[in-house]
Amino acid sequence: METGFIGLGLMGRPMALNLLRAGHRVRVWSRREASLEPLLEAGASACRNAREVAASSEIVISMVADAPDVEKVALGSDGVADGARPDAIFIDMSTIAPSAARSISARLAERGVCMLDAPVSGGEAGAIAGTLTIMVGGPEAAFRKALPLFEAMGGKITHIDEKPGAGQVAKACNQVITGVGVASLAEALNFARSSGVDLAAVRQVLMGGLANSRILENHGQRMVARDFAPGFKSWMHLKDMRIVLSEGHALHVPLPTAAAAAQLYSAMLGSGLGEEDSVAMLKLFESMSGSSEMREEGQ
Amino acid sequence: METGFIGLGLMGRPMALNLLRAGHRVRVWSRREASLEPLLEAGASACRNAREVAASSEIVISMVADAPDVEKVALGSDGVADGARPDAIFIDMSTIAPSAARSISARLAERGVCMLDAPVSGGEAGAIAGTLTIMVGGPEAAFRKALPLFEAMGGKITHIDEKPGAGQVAKACNQVITGVGVASLAEALNFARSSGVDLAAVRQVLMGGLANSRILENHGQRMVARDFAPGFKSWMHLKDMRIVLSEGHALHVPLPTAAAAAQLYSAMLGSGLGEEDSVAMLKLFESMSGSSEMREEGQ
Repeated sequence: METGFIGLGLMGRPMALNLLRAGHRVRVWSRREASLEPLLEAGASACRNAREVAASSEIVISMVADAPDVEKVALGSDGVADGARPDAIFIDMSTIAPSAARSISARLAERGVCMLDAPVSGGEAGAIAGTLTIMVGGPEAAFRKALPLFEAMGGKITHIDEKPGAGQVAKACNQVITGVGVASLAEALNFARSSGVDLAAVRQVLMGGLANSRILENHGQRMVARDFAPGFKSWMHLKDMRIVLSEGHALHVPLPTAAAAAQLYSAMLGSGLGEEDSVAMLKLFESMSGSSEMREEGQ
Repeated sequence: METGFIGLGLMGRPMALNLLRAGHRVRVWSRREASLEPLLEAGASACRNAREVAASSEIVISMVADAPDVEKVALGSDGVADGARPDAIFIDMSTIAPSAARSISARLAERGVCMLDAPVSGGEAGAIAGTLTIMVGGPEAAFRKALPLFEAMGGKITHIDEKPGAGQVAKACNQVITGVGVASLAEALNFARSSGVDLAAVRQVLMGGLANSRILENHGQRMVARDFAPGFKSWMHLKDMRIVLSEGHALHVPLPTAAAAAQLYSAMLGSGLGEEDSVAMLKLFESMSGSSEMREEGQ
């Protein structure tokens, strides 16, 4: 398919490469020349701006940092809407607020461009392996047309709902559950440590019951092994939690455990742990907790 | 084995019945005559107090409501310590604070009684089926001697550590992760509902990624189906969370997501949802959230 791809960072680059490998023609544009090179070597063609990308693509994908970037790419001057063909589809795969996705979708519709919101989970490893989970909101017909592209980049692809923003809503739910899950796991394992009990044994017994989860399996193992290498950096978790909390605020929807967890990610950044994996939440708790050894020494 | 069992409630009764079925001789005592009957019919013998139970048992098990009950049974007048044989083992399978378990263990040791703390997870269904998860703290030799009894009552039996209270520490970790997990799931699914997105589709896509957990599978399914029948009642969750928070307070160990979740279980009790399953946390969130329908109506 004639495809455009804008945003060639840690996630976007391997995703675009997977599109090329699957035989799609890919046009790219990036503000930074250097990020284009690996794509051009793999057979992509370079454009001078998002308008040019759109002018020669059936589907244009963006994978950028935040809502203002998506807006600029889609609706800014020399943006996608300026150059889009009559039946064009714009797919934003960034993680942004559902309300921002709805607003951009509505403004693109006025200019004749159909939008899907399709955020992903699975991280850089999933992007490289082409096994991302992709959560899609927007019209069924557009979803069906884009499916071959999604299949080149992802393993589990779900059309959540025709409503614009539905993919971002699912991603927000994912971030609440994983963001809070890592925090409560760190909290529980630190409680065990402070009580002088072996973390590995606790993790093992919890895996046999209702407490079991992918986070207990993966993050729990790394906490036990004290492997804090990123992975998904703490500041990224904080960014995602802030999106959800801000959206909840606008909807009058309380998110109390997500709010508590967001404060902890904020404390990680304040403790110099922002560039480490979220697993380093354990270190944050250690830095502000007593231990059984201390108590035995009478401190 | 010559076994004593004290505490024949929802959990204790089926556990004692499973000991009888496995061929152990079981002596029981209960303040309430009525709760003795099903045990006596199944072949147990009745005693007049905990002292009498202990006098004719190698191992005495208690399964009662809270730490003061365990203390009374173990150390009170006509209690286990008053009648225990020289090599007796006392096993408390109730969920109480690790510090309470340590204190009772130390006082029993002074009177020549060895204690194991062995709280369980798996609920009434697990007690009836004999598939409980049993988390044990205390001396290895006592654990090995008691193992045939544990095997008659449980499916997964783990000796966490020789330290007294280690079983209760593992159970406390379990309660943090499950208590917070149910709350954050309700919070996330309510966010989806308030955003006008189908809960079943969101749950399905989250099960494919890092957010997957037993709680998403079980409690998530019941939230989607609006099946709020207990199960594990909300007030029981609150009781367990309060044990953990109080222990954390004593250790100077912060538990911020558990604290946020405990406030929500408290709000469930305040909203008349205390006797419903923790799954009814979704109703609590619904009662205090806007919805996309409301917004569309301009309310």
